[in-house]
Amino acid sequence: MIIQSKSHPYSVEFFDELAAALSAISTPERSHWLVDQALIEHYPEVFRNVLPEGRTVLIEATEEHKSYDAIGPVFLDLLGKGIRRDGNLVVVGGGVVQDIGCFIATVLARGIRWELVPTTLLAQADSCIGSKSSINIGEFKNQIGTFYSPHRVLLCPSVLQSLPWDEIRSGLGEVIKFQLLTSEAGFRELMDDLADLRANPQRITKWIHRSLEIKKAYIEEDEFDHGRRNLLNYGHTFGHAYESATHYAIPHGIAVALGMLTATYVSVQNGMVAREHFDYVKRQLLPWCAPYGEHLTRVALDDVILAMRRDKKNTAAGVNCILTRDYGKMEKLKVDIDGLIVPSLRTLIASELH
Amino acid sequence: MIIQSKSHPYSVEFFDELAAALSAISTPERSHWLVDQALIEHYPEVFRNVLPEGRTVLIEATEEHKSYDAIGPVFLDLLGKGIRRDGNLVVVGGGVVQDIGCFIATVLARGIRWELVPTTLLAQADSCIGSKSSINIGEFKNQIGTFYSPHRVLLCPSVLQSLPWDEIRSGLGEVIKFQLLTSEAGFRELMDDLADLRANPQRITKWIHRSLEIKKAYIEEDEFDHGRRNLLNYGHTFGHAYESATHYAIPHGIAVALGMLTATYVSVQNGMVAREHFDYVKRQLLPWCAPYGEHLTRVALDDVILAMRRDKKNTAAGVNCILTRDYGKMEKLKVDIDGLIVPSLRTLIASELH
Repeated sequence: MIIQSKSHPYSVEFFDELAAALSAISTPERSHWLVDQALIEHYPEVFRNVLPEGRTVLIEATEEHKSYDAIGPVFLDLLGKGIRRDGNLVVVGGGVVQDIGCFIATVLARGIRWELVPTTLLAQADSCIGSKSSINIGEFKNQIGTFYSPHRVLLCPSVLQSLPWDEIRSGLGEVIKFQLLTSEAGFRELMDDLADLRANPQRITKWIHRSLEIKKAYIEEDEFDHGRRNLLNYGHTFGHAYESATHYAIPHGIAVALGMLTATYVSVQNGMVAREHFDYVKRQLLPWCAPYGEHLTRVALDDVILAMRRDKKNTAAGVNCILTRDYGKMEKLKVDIDGLIVPSLRTLIASELH
Repeated sequence: MIIQSKSHPYSVEFFDELAAALSAISTPERSHWLVDQALIEHYPEVFRNVLPEGRTVLIEATEEHKSYDAIGPVFLDLLGKGIRRDGNLVVVGGGVVQDIGCFIATVLARGIRWELVPTTLLAQADSCIGSKSSINIGEFKNQIGTFYSPHRVLLCPSVLQSLPWDEIRSGLGEVIKFQLLTSEAGFRELMDDLADLRANPQRITKWIHRSLEIKKAYIEEDEFDHGRRNLLNYGHTFGHAYESATHYAIPHGIAVALGMLTATYVSVQNGMVAREHFDYVKRQLLPWCAPYGEHLTRVALDDVILAMRRDKKNTAAGVNCILTRDYGKMEKLKVDIDGLIVPSLRTLIASELH
């Protein structure tokens, strides 16, 4: 798969084994590595054979390390280990490591070559293409960042089998989103496949492919997120508010799934879609969100509303959110908080999440 | 003047008075300001009338402040003062403030609108277009940076009259470079005008215009500095080495002028240009460089060579430098340090800089 990007076109290449993906990087003799240190424990042999001594930096993939101040020492470590403008930075990890690696690759010598080996479902099925990085500074989350594509994405779905099931489940939130954004048939086929995914983990490869194909169309049309790409935030306005109001007790993908359920419900209340549509989506999604749907019923509505008002994408006047008229028919609207969102969320949280 | 850039086209607009330039910024109600604090002392009235309380950050324009770590607090200050993705950052100052402002505008919310009011000759006649930022980290100078154009450049040549003459003289180094890169007629006309520039300071406006016109052609053809734009580094390989070997005792523009003189001399030694060409250029440039040409005669050649070997643009095998066959006929070559550079510099420094 080739992705067109304003910085440069790049490829997404699939591999059966992690060792094969890591061995396929370009110019190994001029490459530096930035690797999630937790991965080393899962694949000690594989990494021992591939990581060059003196050109490897291991990082802890936490939200705290994804900050402007914490990235300074990583720059210094890489520069001290000799990375220069003609180098290649190989980034191996999930979303946090990708954010850090992308930011570094963008601003080191005004942009160096980098290759990405995504190792979580969220990274493989969604964030590995689209060229965004998001970095925290102080109390400001994701306020710093860049658009800069990797030069290659080397993708190995089998590494997902080493992840805890809950992390897979969370990553599926965005996979489900891509199908809701596309068609009823796609959504139904996906939910059927997911029903016995644990017994057939190799099925996920197909859905990584299909997710990336859908995202590719959005980002090639609107890489810098000025228009249609906004729709990829479906579920995120509510999802972010749920994450924030629960102090991140809900995993991101689950929060997005609950956010899409919420957007569907608000769309019903707004007269945009039939109640039956919500009922079907709810029947499909809610089991995937357990026990976090239940969890939301114990969260104060005021905290959710406050989080939405604080969201950097919203203004005092209203909330920008993506609502739906049908599968594949999402619309970005500015909606009134007090008139629509508050009453919708009150009923939803009180009586629809059980 | 409109500059085409990959991020967006932008204008360079000339103003007679600083107050007029500052009043011409876009969306004042949504703008934050990043201003060289030394300017406030020169124009207290002008700034009092224009800087919004609570949306202004003053910075000290020193090399130490142009560092990754020192920029963190500036981000936090701006974010704390409410800057957001739909804002406009007005950057007022010389090269250091421009570097800091450009870097911040590039990575804040993945790129916000910014407008530049350059206030030094170097910034007005050269760096204000071309979209580069360069930031230090630890001991690594200029290793971090971005390409991101301002959305407007508001240029007021009369502010240069508040600057010390030595700073003007230094800024002229790049102005001279643009003419050497173009034609003998341009170089002669410039040097004639400069002879009594102090008595006729308004003449500089013409040369700011002409410098930017020349640079515009280079950067529109090769914004990301992969080819022809490299030639704008004429004089810089040697100039940087002189700055470094003298611990920055030589002002940048003077070092560039001495660097161009050196490049011409090396070109003579390399059989590329006639000795008479060097003699004429030397007669024109050396007086502008006093007393720093003399200063170089007391610098150890070894220190200059060491600095060249360490330059991030060079490799162990040779030095990338721009040599000349004539006015407007520069060429980038990889030359042998021991075979050509060392003997050339030895004679030049020993006998040509008096």
